[in-house]
Amino acid sequence: MNELRMHPRFVSLEGGEGAGKTTVLNALRDALAADGSEVVCTREPGGTPLAEMIRKLLLDPGHEPAAPETELLLMFAARAQHVREVILPALARGAWVLCDRFTDSSHAYQGGGRGIDTALIDELERRVVGIRPALTLLLDLPVAQGRARAQGRDGTPDRIESEQDAFFERVRAAFLARALSFPERFRVLDASRPAERVAADAVGHLLAWRGGA
Amino acid sequence: MNELRMHPRFVSLEGGEGAGKTTVLNALRDALAADGSEVVCTREPGGTPLAEMIRKLLLDPGHEPAAPETELLLMFAARAQHVREVILPALARGAWVLCDRFTDSSHAYQGGGRGIDTALIDELERRVVGIRPALTLLLDLPVAQGRARAQGRDGTPDRIESEQDAFFERVRAAFLARALSFPERFRVLDASRPAERVAADAVGHLLAWRGGA
Repeated sequence: MNELRMHPRFVSLEGGEGAGKTTVLNALRDALAADGSEVVCTREPGGTPLAEMIRKLLLDPGHEPAAPETELLLMFAARAQHVREVILPALARGAWVLCDRFTDSSHAYQGGGRGIDTALIDELERRVVGIRPALTLLLDLPVAQGRARAQGRDGTPDRIESEQDAFFERVRAAFLARALSFPERFRVLDASRPAERVAADAVGHLLAWRGGA
Repeated sequence: MNELRMHPRFVSLEGGEGAGKTTVLNALRDALAADGSEVVCTREPGGTPLAEMIRKLLLDPGHEPAAPETELLLMFAARAQHVREVILPALARGAWVLCDRFTDSSHAYQGGGRGIDTALIDELERRVVGIRPALTLLLDLPVAQGRARAQGRDGTPDRIESEQDAFFERVRAAFLARALSFPERFRVLDASRPAERVAADAVGHLLAWRGGA
């Protein structure tokens, strides 16, 4: 697996904390399933039993902090598993795959946020992932607003949620830089609006793109 | 971290199942500690709380099998952590580091055993590990003999111990190929002899090397 393939039924959703990804994901799933198509909704890190265990290691504050390189390799270990066990088989049988976060999140969090060299992330994408979504919807909103929303939720913050504002500013900037680098693939949505408005917008982008693809 | 550095107080021990690594490791530790030097004995995968959790994921048969690429990235995630948390700090304060398995094991098990491209392993070594032992002692023995010894131990076999003979033949060949590629760094010991003989031999190699280094 040494070449990147863009798969026409593979759609990813990206964005920071509190951007409303769940509402949007559900709306996209319903829109794709309306004609009877199979839609596989999945998430990263995770999506298989082993990958969910890796997710737990990544987010659990119960051990020493992971070095940035460790965090990156754990993310890609989970992704390598998820691609082979879930995403490629689903695409091969003709299903749509809607994924909550994919490789762009590694560029944003481990690249932008933690300062890992982009060349290493690209190398891992090419060598162990091998596929890219054909459409990526980025839910963008100011960091302060995302944090305020995320803090309204239950539970204690996980390892990544516990980072400082400067970290999330770098994450946001890295996401926007990805969108600028891949204008054909990305649609950037203003996620500061009410979730239903953002979801309607996202469905509009998806259907227009599917019609044109 | 984009260059490989060979550290003069970093020694690794490599070999297949049942090769007697524990006996040899203890003898090497005692020999190095005889003059009062600090000796850090550690192992891979593992060596830190997080890396030991990754080890558990790698060896536990309680989830779906890891894809070869997933296994490789988990190994290097654990190694990246181990190097930063344990090995580099120990070397920096002047201690000897004796490591039970290191990057050569990834070449043997994930490269030779699972068929992962060597170029990817080299790339990960260069980009996320950055150091190599100055001396590597390889305990070599025929696969059948190693298995017979390992089967005499307690407990159910882990994921890697459950592999077939052909897998272990490829692992052995890959270890020997590494030794041939790096004749300055490697010493190959016939581990089919009694453990005490092998340990005495290993100590002899270590002291001769330290004297000459």
